[in-house]
Amino acid sequence: MTAVRCYFSPQSGYAYLGHARLCRIAAETGATILWRPVDIGTVFAESGTVPPPKQSAVRLAYRRADMARFAAALGLPLNPTPPFWPAATGLAQRLIVAAEAEEHDPAALIGAILAAVWARDLDIGDPATLVRLATEEGLDGEALVRLADTPEIAASAAAHTAEAVAAGVFGSPSYIVGDELFFGQDRLDFVEAALRDAAGLEL
Amino acid sequence: MTAVRCYFSPQSGYAYLGHARLCRIAAETGATILWRPVDIGTVFAESGTVPPPKQSAVRLAYRRADMARFAAALGLPLNPTPPFWPAATGLAQRLIVAAEAEEHDPAALIGAILAAVWARDLDIGDPATLVRLATEEGLDGEALVRLADTPEIAASAAAHTAEAVAAGVFGSPSYIVGDELFFGQDRLDFVEAALRDAAGLEL
Repeated sequence: MTAVRCYFSPQSGYAYLGHARLCRIAAETGATILWRPVDIGTVFAESGTVPPPKQSAVRLAYRRADMARFAAALGLPLNPTPPFWPAATGLAQRLIVAAEAEEHDPAALIGAILAAVWARDLDIGDPATLVRLATEEGLDGEALVRLADTPEIAASAAAHTAEAVAAGVFGSPSYIVGDELFFGQDRLDFVEAALRDAAGLEL
Repeated sequence: MTAVRCYFSPQSGYAYLGHARLCRIAAETGATILWRPVDIGTVFAESGTVPPPKQSAVRLAYRRADMARFAAALGLPLNPTPPFWPAATGLAQRLIVAAEAEEHDPAALIGAILAAVWARDLDIGDPATLVRLATEEGLDGEALVRLADTPEIAASAAAHTAEAVAAGVFGSPSYIVGDELFFGQDRLDFVEAALRDAAGLEL
């Protein structure tokens, strides 16, 4: 079975914009998504990337306009200036890892966390928000947040970040199919083509 | 008549990849292209952008792979590691301004300069290369290069760069339709939609 690795920050606006489309592409091509929530601060530091919140005013203004255009084109709600961005994302990252450790498909929870930042004005750095989001997804939010605070889960989360750095990831979202890296939800056409190619489907 | 301003560096790989498509979109929507060759070093410095040649190894490697994918998708020849990149671009910038001052439509010359870097392994920092490229386009290359070295042309070229900075441009290629800025040839879908909207055409 073909697979696509998705490296992302739980507070990534472009990961939010690409989330549903990535899920749809994977379903249509029969690919498994390997979810890799990462500590994007480490990824930025290791790859020499200026974090978006620290970019110049013109770049930040453009980024917001660009996100709003994609949201409109995709029919997604978006607050381009969310009140809780940047947020502390460590617990959200580990919550996703914890959900997988409990054998839940984390796709819907990931979508909910990303939407919490960019469409619901929620603070994903607040443990109560994460309990609420997990509960809304039908999971045991309290138990998952406790699990997310264990050393085992922290170690898995750190491994995802290390894997991202080793793979040459420098931003969120990034996708890897085979040995090909794709950066940005605006490259999902290429991801889809690579998955179709890997699956022997017509392009 | 609607217009699109195209801000670009004469050595921009993504400007090369988007050149023919921009020309086609403008023709199809009845828009005028206002060509704005700029000194991208000044634009980068003013906008806090790390110049591509100075980006980290992982970003540069990704950039090359990304350009190769677009070239393949667009059916354009490309050397992702051109021998004369980065190049000195001041004279090329001024040559384009000089061609316009002589009332030539510079679109073909611009395409030739961009292709010289990315598909023909030529050094656009060499005046002889520029004479050759202009001559190949049916222009008086020697006379245009002489004109490009006059203070009047240099002033016009500097004005383009200043206009870009004032407009919030931070990279090449950038496009402005009305008061909307679009960065990157991967945003030409949005540029086309904006031009169709401005012209009252169906989206």
